[in-house]
Amino acid sequence: MNITLTPVGHVENTITEKTFTPHRNDDPEERLKQIRKYRKETRNTLSTLVILPRYTELLDGIEEFSHIVVVYWPHQLPLEDRQLKKVHPMGREEIPLQGIFATRSPARPNPLLISTVRLRNRKDNTLQVQGLEALHGSPILDIKPVTRDVDKDETLQFPQWIHDINQDLDHGD
Amino acid sequence: MNITLTPVGHVENTITEKTFTPHRNDDPEERLKQIRKYRKETRNTLSTLVILPRYTELLDGIEEFSHIVVVYWPHQLPLEDRQLKKVHPMGREEIPLQGIFATRSPARPNPLLISTVRLRNRKDNTLQVQGLEALHGSPILDIKPVTRDVDKDETLQFPQWIHDINQDLDHGD
Repeated sequence: MNITLTPVGHVENTITEKTFTPHRNDDPEERLKQIRKYRKETRNTLSTLVILPRYTELLDGIEEFSHIVVVYWPHQLPLEDRQLKKVHPMGREEIPLQGIFATRSPARPNPLLISTVRLRNRKDNTLQVQGLEALHGSPILDIKPVTRDVDKDETLQFPQWIHDINQDLDHGD
Repeated sequence: MNITLTPVGHVENTITEKTFTPHRNDDPEERLKQIRKYRKETRNTLSTLVILPRYTELLDGIEEFSHIVVVYWPHQLPLEDRQLKKVHPMGREEIPLQGIFATRSPARPNPLLISTVRLRNRKDNTLQVQGLEALHGSPILDIKPVTRDVDKDETLQFPQWIHDINQDLDHGD
């Protein structure tokens, strides 16, 4: 069974360099520094989501939401990366290998990337959002509103490596 | 540009009836009652996510997360529903028509359905989850861990109709 999707738009922003590449072999400290810098930049980066004009009407009402979910496609991900089974999260070799489905790595069998971002503005068929880490030119597959804080009455639990990564990343702020 | 996906597994549960059908013309009160009942049921429903054996290893490490994101495909959605431009949210005609991208309606150009659910158990290539409202047999496209409470330091804002719907739904609990 194959499922075929057609993009409904694309991302325009200033992010042109891939940061998370599983095969990269640079210095761990340097990598962490890069990731911190990257994260800080993307948090503030404004992206324009250019939706195809024939879908303009489908955006009506989205202005009233503070946050939206963007589903996009990593068009620069090499095909062979979809075959990976395990990775060191964020390329950090001191963290044990994790199955791809236990990570948010873009390298996965169906690389549907999902990001919750702040909606700043809508004008006709374009949305301006803040905090999207998609590369410039990424095809957009879907846009959804964030309708409910699903976690508000539930406690989330993560493995230790997630805490470690979050702590390391926040350290740079 | 076409993007082709192949399911990585499927959902097994007791949910066999579609609830949100945009063309249905039943009594609003009756519909609300049904939706409440449905929502209560799905909150407690246990589903088994059967992942293809060749992807078993990709699940390693997922046991340590309390919540996962399931991306699945509404295999029973009629093709013509992907052409809809606006809907009354949850079929409630007293709520003004909203553009599809401003709703979580399954009827959308690329119906990639995304649900955050509680992970109860993993055994080899199967995950038991609670709260998934996918129909029995739905193809699974991706599994991701919930790695961070993205909303914890941000205030979400919704249009009034979302508050109304949430209130109506919670009223039945």
